[in-house]
Amino acid sequence: MAAPTPPPPPKTVLRVAAISGSLRRASANTGLIRAAAEICRESIPGLQIDHVDISQLPLLNTDLEAGGGFPPAVEAFRDRVRAADCFLFASPEYNYSISGPLKNALDWGSRPPNCWADRAAAMLSASGSTGGSRSQYHIRQVGVFLDIHFINKPEVFTKAHLPPRKFDADGNLIDSETKEQVRNMLLSLQEFSLRLQGKSKQGN
Amino acid sequence: MAAPTPPPPPKTVLRVAAISGSLRRASANTGLIRAAAEICRESIPGLQIDHVDISQLPLLNTDLEAGGGFPPAVEAFRDRVRAADCFLFASPEYNYSISGPLKNALDWGSRPPNCWADRAAAMLSASGSTGGSRSQYHIRQVGVFLDIHFINKPEVFTKAHLPPRKFDADGNLIDSETKEQVRNMLLSLQEFSLRLQGKSKQGN
Amino acid sequence: MAAPTPPPPPKTVLRVAAISGSLRRASANTGLIRAAAEICRESIPGLQIDHVDISQLPLLNTDLEAGGGFPPAVEAFRDRVRAADCFLFASPEYNYSISGPLKNALDWGSRPPNCWADRAAAMLSASGSTGGSRSQYHIRQVGVFLDIHFINKPEVFTKAHLPPRKFDADGNLIDSETKEQVRNMLLSLQEFSLRLQGKSKQGN
Amino acid sequence: MAAPTPPPPPKTVLRVAAISGSLRRASANTGLIRAAAEICRESIPGLQIDHVDISQLPLLNTDLEAGGGFPPAVEAFRDRVRAADCFLFASPEYNYSISGPLKNALDWGSRPPNCWADRAAAMLSASGSTGGSRSQYHIRQVGVFLDIHFINKPEVFTKAHLPPRKFDADGNLIDSETKEQVRNMLLSLQEFSLRLQGKSKQGN
Repeated sequence: MAAPTPPPPPKTVLRVAAISGSLRRASANTGLIRAAAEICRESIPGLQIDHVDISQLPLLNTDLEAGGGFPPAVEAFRDRVRAADCFLFASPEYNYSISGPLKNALDWGSRPPNCWADRAAAMLSASGSTGGSRSQYHIRQVGVFLDIHFINKPEVFTKAHLPPRKFDADGNLIDSETKEQVRNMLLSLQEFSLRLQGKSKQGN
Repeated sequence: MAAPTPPPPPKTVLRVAAISGSLRRASANTGLIRAAAEICRESIPGLQIDHVDISQLPLLNTDLEAGGGFPPAVEAFRDRVRAADCFLFASPEYNYSISGPLKNALDWGSRPPNCWADRAAAMLSASGSTGGSRSQYHIRQVGVFLDIHFINKPEVFTKAHLPPRKFDADGNLIDSETKEQVRNMLLSLQEFSLRLQGKSKQGN
Repeated sequence: MAAPTPPPPPKTVLRVAAISGSLRRASANTGLIRAAAEICRESIPGLQIDHVDISQLPLLNTDLEAGGGFPPAVEAFRDRVRAADCFLFASPEYNYSISGPLKNALDWGSRPPNCWADRAAAMLSASGSTGGSRSQYHIRQVGVFLDIHFINKPEVFTKAHLPPRKFDADGNLIDSETKEQVRNMLLSLQEFSLRLQGKSKQGN
Repeated sequence: MAAPTPPPPPKTVLRVAAISGSLRRASANTGLIRAAAEICRESIPGLQIDHVDISQLPLLNTDLEAGGGFPPAVEAFRDRVRAADCFLFASPEYNYSISGPLKNALDWGSRPPNCWADRAAAMLSASGSTGGSRSQYHIRQVGVFLDIHFINKPEVFTKAHLPPRKFDADGNLIDSETKEQVRNMLLSLQEFSLRLQGKSKQGN
């Protein structure tokens, strides 16, 4: 009698800590994170988005570590970062650079021991005429110190104010071409992350 | 009988809004601002430092402008920025870029109408091995959008952790060579600011 | 009898050394320089473009200064830079940064004594999807060391490959909207340059 | 009788194309490349330096590709880049950015088909007070487009003009601490390169 077919090897599921640098309710950048989460749920079983809120972090001040620990909101944030296999940043461009809230979150996560180290990451932006590119290169420089390995391609720069309309009034992504860009970025992040972990995309 | 000597023309006094990007009590960067204020009081009559605190600003979120105005702490901050003739930033380097609190302050000041426009500025940093230079070039890029005119020279990069000891335990600047660098930077800021205003340093 | 009307005060004419970072014959960036020259001739009497070629400069190697002077092509280039009141750079974006030929020219001009110091400058770019912005911020950082004062606004990023067609097959600018942007940039450069020189735009 | 022990699996030998951005004979940056080659020969059997000269490359001008190929010096350069498993750049800082000759070489290698893609790289610099850091972050931005994966750590910034003396009059590295830094960088490059290739450092 033939031996039963063995089950397929379990697929590696990567947890992606996803952070939006904009705090406003109807933010298009936060909408990009929601779209990424939905795309993963629907069609990328190996990736799971953990949407991490940064609005409750205090402004960085190391005096707040005086007791030997971090404030509770910081501790909770750092736990989520540490638990992730890789990162996704939605980076609005504020005055040609990173938003203050996102930089603040990156800095809290970097306090020793650095929670970001040696993980892959990707970035996307919804912004004005250059689509946020100026903010992304500053984040890449930050990543050198944090020891984050950013994918090089694809880069996603969503020109939120040019036609066709890409977001509804609540910041939800409604443009299929941009969705396809987000999906391609997620697949590239997954592949690079597995490659850095010494695993192939095909599983086990 | 000889006519009486006329009084010297009144000197232009420039108000400098000075901001430290570090919030901790014993910050060396905040110490650089205090040193600059003392140098102005003692020996640069044409410059007057207004040390502007940024620790009470909320994280930027434009939903907070929903009522048509800014939160009170933001409004007060913006008033101080608007009243200044020029700016002095003490920029710690956090993860190879601007500190979150300083970026947050720059962003609140930029909300329309932009409070920073068309003024001269200078920067100094107390930081590690490169003295904060990486943060300063990011701020210069931000300045392009804010329409700030940074002086090119001198640049002040204080290597806070290398001998000789430059700051006491409270972050007060105690190194005379660094004080001289700060003084030279202030004189350069004064000269460039007057030049942009179409005034000479010699007064009237 | 009425006194004769005095002649109008002589207008200051500023000489602009203009450099294209692209060496190819039909370059759109070089086309932007030609367009700027034509705009000055036709409608900005106070500005005069000197189009400086950089294609004959050797790759920078300070061993070539061994005799105590510069190679003839370098010497000639430096003379043109030194004679200018301000600068206009047409900067193509090569691999997210300055073109090699333009960086090479900037470096030759910086050899002591630095020929660029304390002059105003402006930049424009014809490039791909972000219009060359990534190259311009690198040049601004270079300008800090060279002591160049760049205007902040307007920035000109010509998206050469998007409709409407902006350049003909020889790289000549044929788009009236871009011409207007170039003209506005030149007027801003003129104003800032005069301001730094302590002169008003209205003359004398 | 016991079977003979099989030979150890052949070690992967990675070829490193190493490029100095300075063309002068006694360059300290070129000295760093020579030191790296010697360190590999003596103690890192899995890495082999191919020191690639860039002094004979013409200034980039795509008109030189008119015949459908590249000038012979460019073709030869591109062959060496393409044959490499990873890259080592010795980057002097010229005016707060990449040297013209190095940018020119990076650009020639990028002409389609891009010769740099999907390889690991590391950088070291011998330079002034910040040790060349400003040039390295510009190169990292270039690397995003070229699809180069730079190691994050260690970064090597050799302050060539500070004591102790690090280079002899011919630009040879004579400082043992810097040699150790170069060695650590090479080991990190080797490890990251193997990791990206899906190989472990232990071989086969």
